[in-house]
Amino acid sequence: MYELQFAVPMSGAILNNINTRLDATTVSVLLRHCESKLLFVDVFYSDLAVEAIKKLDKPPILVLIEEDEEGGDGADVADRSKFCYSYSVLVERGDPDFNWIRPESEWDPIVVNYTSGTTSSPKGVVHCHRGIFVMSLDSLIDWTVPKNPVYLWTLPIFHANGWCYPWAIAAVGGTNVCLRKFQAPLIHRLIRDHGVTHMCGAPVVLNMLTATHEEPLKSPVHFLTAGSSPPVTVLLRAESLGFVISHGYGLTETAGVVVSCAWKPQWNRLPASDQARLKGRQGVGTVGFTEIDVVDPASGRSVERDGATMGEIVMRGSSVMLGYLKDPVGTRKTLKNGWFFTGDVGVLHGDGYLEIKDRSKDVIITGGENVSSVEVEAVLYTHSAVNEAAVVARPDEQWGETPCAFVSLKPGLTRKPTEKEMIEYCREKMPRYMVPKTVVFLDELPKTSTGKIPKFVLKEMANKMGSTRLSRL
Amino acid sequence: MYELQFAVPMSGAILNNINTRLDATTVSVLLRHCESKLLFVDVFYSDLAVEAIKKLDKPPILVLIEEDEEGGDGADVADRSKFCYSYSVLVERGDPDFNWIRPESEWDPIVVNYTSGTTSSPKGVVHCHRGIFVMSLDSLIDWTVPKNPVYLWTLPIFHANGWCYPWAIAAVGGTNVCLRKFQAPLIHRLIRDHGVTHMCGAPVVLNMLTATHEEPLKSPVHFLTAGSSPPVTVLLRAESLGFVISHGYGLTETAGVVVSCAWKPQWNRLPASDQARLKGRQGVGTVGFTEIDVVDPASGRSVERDGATMGEIVMRGSSVMLGYLKDPVGTRKTLKNGWFFTGDVGVLHGDGYLEIKDRSKDVIITGGENVSSVEVEAVLYTHSAVNEAAVVARPDEQWGETPCAFVSLKPGLTRKPTEKEMIEYCREKMPRYMVPKTVVFLDELPKTSTGKIPKFVLKEMANKMGSTRLSRL
Repeated sequence: MYELQFAVPMSGAILNNINTRLDATTVSVLLRHCESKLLFVDVFYSDLAVEAIKKLDKPPILVLIEEDEEGGDGADVADRSKFCYSYSVLVERGDPDFNWIRPESEWDPIVVNYTSGTTSSPKGVVHCHRGIFVMSLDSLIDWTVPKNPVYLWTLPIFHANGWCYPWAIAAVGGTNVCLRKFQAPLIHRLIRDHGVTHMCGAPVVLNMLTATHEEPLKSPVHFLTAGSSPPVTVLLRAESLGFVISHGYGLTETAGVVVSCAWKPQWNRLPASDQARLKGRQGVGTVGFTEIDVVDPASGRSVERDGATMGEIVMRGSSVMLGYLKDPVGTRKTLKNGWFFTGDVGVLHGDGYLEIKDRSKDVIITGGENVSSVEVEAVLYTHSAVNEAAVVARPDEQWGETPCAFVSLKPGLTRKPTEKEMIEYCREKMPRYMVPKTVVFLDELPKTSTGKIPKFVLKEMANKMGSTRLSRL
Repeated sequence: MYELQFAVPMSGAILNNINTRLDATTVSVLLRHCESKLLFVDVFYSDLAVEAIKKLDKPPILVLIEEDEEGGDGADVADRSKFCYSYSVLVERGDPDFNWIRPESEWDPIVVNYTSGTTSSPKGVVHCHRGIFVMSLDSLIDWTVPKNPVYLWTLPIFHANGWCYPWAIAAVGGTNVCLRKFQAPLIHRLIRDHGVTHMCGAPVVLNMLTATHEEPLKSPVHFLTAGSSPPVTVLLRAESLGFVISHGYGLTETAGVVVSCAWKPQWNRLPASDQARLKGRQGVGTVGFTEIDVVDPASGRSVERDGATMGEIVMRGSSVMLGYLKDPVGTRKTLKNGWFFTGDVGVLHGDGYLEIKDRSKDVIITGGENVSSVEVEAVLYTHSAVNEAAVVARPDEQWGETPCAFVSLKPGLTRKPTEKEMIEYCREKMPRYMVPKTVVFLDELPKTSTGKIPKFVLKEMANKMGSTRLSRL
């Protein structure tokens, strides 16, 4: 996948990295939506790919990637006949004098990234060469990545191109340490064996890496995390082991981290509690990005910089997407008057630092994955017993959040489904990470005067339940 | 001058930083050529500015910069009535809520930089916001400038905007240590007092800083130099004191260093002589720049990458100038088919590294300043006794090169001018650094079959004379 971030654009084609945690149906929807012509498949996901393309009228050509130092040979390919090419053979046959095909315009698309594994309305974020170029430079400067770093790929490349680090790390002559499975002992071994200097990941990754590990790192490892900041206890534990944490905020639509919690040297003299509060803020716009603002949804005006007045976070800069593929309505809703409307809610502090107060109302972030609550609700509503359904985030020690469903059942049922049955039902119809981990049955869902379900009420209820995991212990 | 790199573009105006080593006539020529409307003058150069604008029909408004921590108050202003404003008063009266004026297009000009102090045909290199932006990011990445560096301004800002570091250093929250005069003890004091981490300069600066200084630096100082690489003895001496030397190549037309001698870790295992050879090469294109090539002047084709076949260095990338101000012919000669023709001669090695073999035939680089030999010759030709004149570079231990004039006199003169008289004559007519330090009288200058003066023959003669300085001891 790392090599293909270069090979595909250099051959004049457009990238689409597919989340390997998706199910075959969702994969087929994405392949159809972006009209994939060629699909490179890691041997571990060969069955998934074969199942996905069965559902397509015009299936892409499959290329099998078998060779792997990490023991990919162990994996089985159920139906080898579906694969037209072997990646390693293709590479061997390659023309070393091939003159790479440059884009005609810097505004030409280089990649389409799907923001969530939705089946009804895939959101394909399209970025151009120019935007990716600026974001790649920006990502090096903001994180102060030196020459010849050793980068470990805990953040998947299918996740918004790993925030542009495939290109950025190449630009400074870095070494890439890749891995298929996320296992804390494996990662610690790789850090030790390869002298890893840099890695990215959701706060949950940091939590897993430090929860059961006591041995300090031999040399500092720079860890960049984005979105919600790690809980203070995780932060302190990670720092005591030798991780150097940087923290920022970005979206698939911005191609990478464009808000950075830039640390001021004088803050080192503040009490620990003040430092923790400052570290919890998402930060200021990076140097490659033009502007970040928070606007009042009603008036469209900038909110007061008082750290309290909430509004929608809006942005503009070189790395904002061109738009959503085949979705002019969604694009127009999101890109207005030269600004990108994130859907996230935040405040601006007096010193210009942004702090996110609430993620977009429809999104649950679980283990670094975005889950659209609307999509999960749509599936719940297909259950014959369900009257109303609303899905919100429930806090989780390990995953940050998990989907939590509130359901009211139809009147007069002879048999009411159990929580376990509802979860089973969802498992059959969506990727596993999207499945609600909790289902709460209510006689009736709360309503506003205009008949809408006020999610903040449900969120409060979910918050009061505490961590999914803890409540089950 | 540092503040003005921001204030001028943010007010919607275009920058023109004037070399303070120029004489009043040259300054007036540049001010007229770029139609300056406002001239900010450091108190130390007030007389120069007043003299310069006397020569103009439409003189710019003068603003006097007096306040200075470094004791600028000691300087005299001969004619204070010529100054309409005081800079500090203007700043005090400024509107803190002023909304800075953004360029309408990223291609709008931000700066015009004159490449040499020429009087007959000023070359005003015009750069746009976009080019300066990309070069500023690039300059941080290639030199791995961390957050909050402490930067010492030995490289003048009037020198191609100090290779874009005014903006780059601001982008990473750096501290700027400024100074008026170049004195080795002062610089060493500033490094010590302010904890300087980064500085730029010509190799001659490094030479001066290390020639008489024996005390190692308290902490490493990163020193970026460009053009010719420092002589090995200087390099070793500087490194032993604690300077960390980076080396690259760029031109006023590229806005900064766009070729960088990127060091490969495996080269550390090579013998010192091999390392010195590798360090002498200018390097590879930086990440923000598109392409560097060396082409055969006759065929226009890329030369063999054999480290031996010479050709003209050509480049393309975001930070190549828009063109020369009011000089469409010069611009067309220099920007052809999307490439910038540098006029410099180089070779490409097998590993893609560029090495400069000869600077442009018309340019002498003395103490980091470009001197056009053609311009000096034009002045020599105005002397009533001169028949022919040709100026080439003579090696110099301190300045790198100095202008060396070869002159043949008119026949039948009753009194022949002396070397000293010729030098005096030049001093009255050009900035001091352009004045030939050596004048060699020949009965006749060598000629090719087509009647041209073969400068390489004269260069060989100048080389054989050895360093200007040594030959005078």
